[in-house]
Amino acid sequence: MNMPPYLTPLAGLLGLCLSAGIFFSIKKQSAGGGIAERISIKIQNGAMIFMKREFMHIALFSIILGAAVFVFQDKAFGAAQSAAFFMGCLASSAAGFIGMKTATLANVRTAVAANEHGATKALKIAFSGGAVMGLTVAAMGLIGLGSLFWIFNGNNHLPEILEGFAMGASLVALFYRVGGGIFTKAADVGTDLVGKLEKGIPEDDPRNPGVIADNVGDNVGDVAGMGSDIFESYCGAQIATVAIAASTGAAAVAYSGGSEEILLQLPLILTTVGIVCSALGILLVNLFADKNPALALRMGTIGAAVLFVAAAYGLTHFFGISPLLASAVLCGSLGGVLIGLITEYYTGGRPIRAIAKQGETGVATLVICGLSVGLESVVLPILTIAATLYGAYECAGLYGVGLAAIGMLGTVGITMAIDAYGPIADNAGGIAQMADMGEKTRKITDSLDVVGNTTAAIGKGFAIGAAGLAALALITAFIQKTGISLDLASPDSLRFFFVGLLIGGAVPFFNGSLTMNAVGKAAGKMIDEIRRQFREEPGILEGTVEPDSNRCIDIATKAATRSMAGPALLAVGTPLIVGFGFEWLGAEGAQAGAKTLAGTLIGALLGCVLLALFMSNAGGAWDNAKKYVEEGNLGGKGSDTHSACVVGDTVGDPLKDTSGPSMNILINVMAIVSLVIAGLL
Amino acid sequence: MNMPPYLTPLAGLLGLCLSAGIFFSIKKQSAGGGIAERISIKIQNGAMIFMKREFMHIALFSIILGAAVFVFQDKAFGAAQSAAFFMGCLASSAAGFIGMKTATLANVRTAVAANEHGATKALKIAFSGGAVMGLTVAAMGLIGLGSLFWIFNGNNHLPEILEGFAMGASLVALFYRVGGGIFTKAADVGTDLVGKLEKGIPEDDPRNPGVIADNVGDNVGDVAGMGSDIFESYCGAQIATVAIAASTGAAAVAYSGGSEEILLQLPLILTTVGIVCSALGILLVNLFADKNPALALRMGTIGAAVLFVAAAYGLTHFFGISPLLASAVLCGSLGGVLIGLITEYYTGGRPIRAIAKQGETGVATLVICGLSVGLESVVLPILTIAATLYGAYECAGLYGVGLAAIGMLGTVGITMAIDAYGPIADNAGGIAQMADMGEKTRKITDSLDVVGNTTAAIGKGFAIGAAGLAALALITAFIQKTGISLDLASPDSLRFFFVGLLIGGAVPFFNGSLTMNAVGKAAGKMIDEIRRQFREEPGILEGTVEPDSNRCIDIATKAATRSMAGPALLAVGTPLIVGFGFEWLGAEGAQAGAKTLAGTLIGALLGCVLLALFMSNAGGAWDNAKKYVEEGNLGGKGSDTHSACVVGDTVGDPLKDTSGPSMNILINVMAIVSLVIAGLL
Repeated sequence: MNMPPYLTPLAGLLGLCLSAGIFFSIKKQSAGGGIAERISIKIQNGAMIFMKREFMHIALFSIILGAAVFVFQDKAFGAAQSAAFFMGCLASSAAGFIGMKTATLANVRTAVAANEHGATKALKIAFSGGAVMGLTVAAMGLIGLGSLFWIFNGNNHLPEILEGFAMGASLVALFYRVGGGIFTKAADVGTDLVGKLEKGIPEDDPRNPGVIADNVGDNVGDVAGMGSDIFESYCGAQIATVAIAASTGAAAVAYSGGSEEILLQLPLILTTVGIVCSALGILLVNLFADKNPALALRMGTIGAAVLFVAAAYGLTHFFGISPLLASAVLCGSLGGVLIGLITEYYTGGRPIRAIAKQGETGVATLVICGLSVGLESVVLPILTIAATLYGAYECAGLYGVGLAAIGMLGTVGITMAIDAYGPIADNAGGIAQMADMGEKTRKITDSLDVVGNTTAAIGKGFAIGAAGLAALALITAFIQKTGISLDLASPDSLRFFFVGLLIGGAVPFFNGSLTMNAVGKAAGKMIDEIRRQFREEPGILEGTVEPDSNRCIDIATKAATRSMAGPALLAVGTPLIVGFGFEWLGAEGAQAGAKTLAGTLIGALLGCVLLALFMSNAGGAWDNAKKYVEEGNLGGKGSDTHSACVVGDTVGDPLKDTSGPSMNILINVMAIVSLVIAGLL
Repeated sequence: MNMPPYLTPLAGLLGLCLSAGIFFSIKKQSAGGGIAERISIKIQNGAMIFMKREFMHIALFSIILGAAVFVFQDKAFGAAQSAAFFMGCLASSAAGFIGMKTATLANVRTAVAANEHGATKALKIAFSGGAVMGLTVAAMGLIGLGSLFWIFNGNNHLPEILEGFAMGASLVALFYRVGGGIFTKAADVGTDLVGKLEKGIPEDDPRNPGVIADNVGDNVGDVAGMGSDIFESYCGAQIATVAIAASTGAAAVAYSGGSEEILLQLPLILTTVGIVCSALGILLVNLFADKNPALALRMGTIGAAVLFVAAAYGLTHFFGISPLLASAVLCGSLGGVLIGLITEYYTGGRPIRAIAKQGETGVATLVICGLSVGLESVVLPILTIAATLYGAYECAGLYGVGLAAIGMLGTVGITMAIDAYGPIADNAGGIAQMADMGEKTRKITDSLDVVGNTTAAIGKGFAIGAAGLAALALITAFIQKTGISLDLASPDSLRFFFVGLLIGGAVPFFNGSLTMNAVGKAAGKMIDEIRRQFREEPGILEGTVEPDSNRCIDIATKAATRSMAGPALLAVGTPLIVGFGFEWLGAEGAQAGAKTLAGTLIGALLGCVLLALFMSNAGGAWDNAKKYVEEGNLGGKGSDTHSACVVGDTVGDPLKDTSGPSMNILINVMAIVSLVIAGLL
């Protein structure tokens, strides 16, 4: 028994309609008029400047890549793969664009609602903004993948065509996530340094020329960037599972008791059901938001996940396949929740109090303690991923590993909604401050922000785990597809594998350095510009002349897009150079290229997951240690301990918002590029 | 044509005699009498307190481990392996003890020579102190391995017996290097924090109760610790090469054109020649020290390496085997020099000026820049290791990889001498300060220190590269010995391998966190004690009462030995838990334990090498950025930039002197324990 192939894109369309409905319900809320709205329009315009500039670069890059695929790829599917690639680029860009548009509408309305109606209404608007993003991401994935599935149903090269789509999604994610990450931290650091330290004006003061850019950054980095990031993992997980089903056919059938056809379809069937679960979760949040916002968000996330797993068991029963397939989904879900809880502990529990305490003896001990917490915070999540992998494999072989990734990402509609809710609330706070809406409003927006931060940890857990498993599934598909025999007991294979492993291990470190340097350089340019404006126009500081915030946005945008060249070339170029380079170096028939590239991917995967966890958690822990002191502990704001915590937070900023998140993308781009060129090695 | 088996231990004995000769020539130099000598005796006694306490712990731990080997190991060689294990413990301890004794004699004599005779004589004494350490390390290795080789010549289990020796050496290295690293940084940070920051007294002020402990730390961490570390790699490289020759027999013979017997002997023949080359290099340094000390040290290192490679070619000709074997040695030597030069650049070139420059905008940007430099500094050394591996394999297969490691470590006599010279010069500076020998003397000792720092980079390059290659060779030997088929194209193998890889990747991060925490805790105890002494006895600060420095040493020693439990259990326990745990989890005959453990070792190797490079280089770069500012750049001492650099240096201290160096040991202990239990899996 099969599912009609049009159901998936149809569900996607319905999701998109729901998302549009929510969008317009947000739009019709009051934007307050006056200063707040003017500021929000500035932020919106600034964000669009960034999106457009990035999009131009993406277009250029994707035309080159798409043409290369068209020309060099196997003629049997090159054209279709190239077309799917462009579809992937467009789908991801559209999701980012819609999410961004919504976020910049929702932020001011959240601020106004907090001012005029209080916390509950503000929470609902901010969360609705996030929900639009979440549903759009899921819907775009279902529409894109679903229609490709429908069109090329029965085509032998379906996996290859889907890989084209994934490559498009990854490329866009690279630009939005990494570019956005550089933009946001450059604006943040530059604005704070000149404003707070040199001129002594408060954060989010409208006299600071960089302050609009700073708020734009929150949107481009955390909304559009994260959206495209999760979109990529979401599609990657589904595609990898399809590819595994196709390549391990008989083995997968043996595990599942189902036909190969149903196994090819199952990933999309699951995510189709997943969007429904997400929508129900969103409903749940709205129902309970009045009583206890934190609980509502948590119930929404967990509720959707529970529903999704239950539905998975129902589906296996319905299609008459082994319930162990649903157990693999359950493994993924459980693993995701666990990673989330561990992350929550390390970035919010005892460790952050220990970090803050070390701030009493100065910056050095605080930084050392944060690094140590970051290192330790890697251990349990990694072991959880390993256990998830082991469990999922026991349930349903390699195919089960793909299902576990889908288990983490199936309810992306709601986890992404909560992720995007955070920056909207944060931005609302910034607008409230700039528009001088008073202490009370700011307190409400701050409390909304705190609620989002804790719940987002679970979503982040899903994202990290899923990115790792999706990449692993893609790598597995790569090894299967190249048909290499990679026996590490054979010295010759071991050599290629090891050389590749070392190269791969170095890649995330290089990427970390490139992205951190980029933030530094871009921030330097912002600092120069802000200083120039203050110097040349004394009226700005007096509040009589409006600063030229567009120039700051422009500078940060240019710097961010320019510094994208390094990470982009690294991600796309490494598989090409290693693959074709070693193919050329090695003996005829040794498959040196494929073997070395397999090692590179595995080394890069390990390095990326480790560094991503380390960087994100260390940064998050420093951030929350600062917040802990600001709540009045250990001397509170203005104390020496607080100053030390501010330094820690600044150190952690590029780690958690630029370099760390770029790692997920890096490994996924590398894996998907490798998979695309696998046939040529 | 073979070499008489007694030649190697004989060469070792001759090396030991030479080393003893140098030792007594140092001892008869003037120790100046008076304060300087009293201080040096205090340092010497303090160092011995630490050594004895650690030795007690080592004894306890090694009796348990040795007994376990005796009881559980295969009866065919269990007793011999257990005996070899104790030999390894003793040989390494003896090398550490002699080196430490020499260093604590040489430091005061260097200070006195600098005061009375000037730079050249001081340099010669300090370098002679290092030479004793270098020659002893090499000699102990030759005596130990050589006599085992001689006694068990022709025994089928020779590799297993040698592995016992290596395990002993690793265990001792773990205690001295990691324990010493915790001691030295705890003493350093604790002493500086209370002395410089709270009481405002200068560094190395004899009124500070912690200052002797600080100087003791330089010896236990950098002399005894590094000596046992290198001793372990040195033995590991030889043993792994022997094990590879034994297990890949036919393949190795095909590559080399020699008999299997000569291949088993070649590693020790090479190192026997190596100690002669080292001795000649030491002579070279002494000949040219008058003219240009920096050049002399460099000529000694490079000269010995060139001689060694030339000798390797001569030996292949002499034994009628393929010169490609010597080319593999050359690959190792070249790789080592290259890694050294790259390290020198990142910790001394443009990058440290960039870090210092970032200090102008505050601590946060300086720390970020240092992290970024650290991340980047990983890339080229890793690629160099990969290239060395590739080249050596092309020359002589897996056996060639072992030879490349020997190529890096064959001249350990001189590279270790230069490594140990640094802390002796540093300590001499401390004594000169404490004994109030005047500005001029201190300037000379500072200049000696600088010379050592740059040249030591090359030695460190050898050490890092060799530790990586030696561990790789051990892991290879493990895979060969377990006879597992580990084909990553088979999903089942992939699963075990990947689960292991993730576990292994987490281990170095956990170790990093454990060691950094240990430093923090131990430093906290030092701080409490120093504060207590200052508080309870005001006469100390007035200079009328001598502080109780022994109590400080005792506290740091206790804290260091106690916090060794975590890292030691992690290193020894991980292979046991993973190996036997997955053996129990997996199906009968699946060899799940061995496959998972192979993954764990590979993941840990990658993680260890990456983190070791990152931590050592970031720490070194911050240290030298501070020195760069202290030379008068960017405002010089006392400027805000300098304060920022001091914070960076403090952050880097535990990274470069505790956590970073512990990584080499960690992976080598894990690999050797795995190899020892390989037969049981």
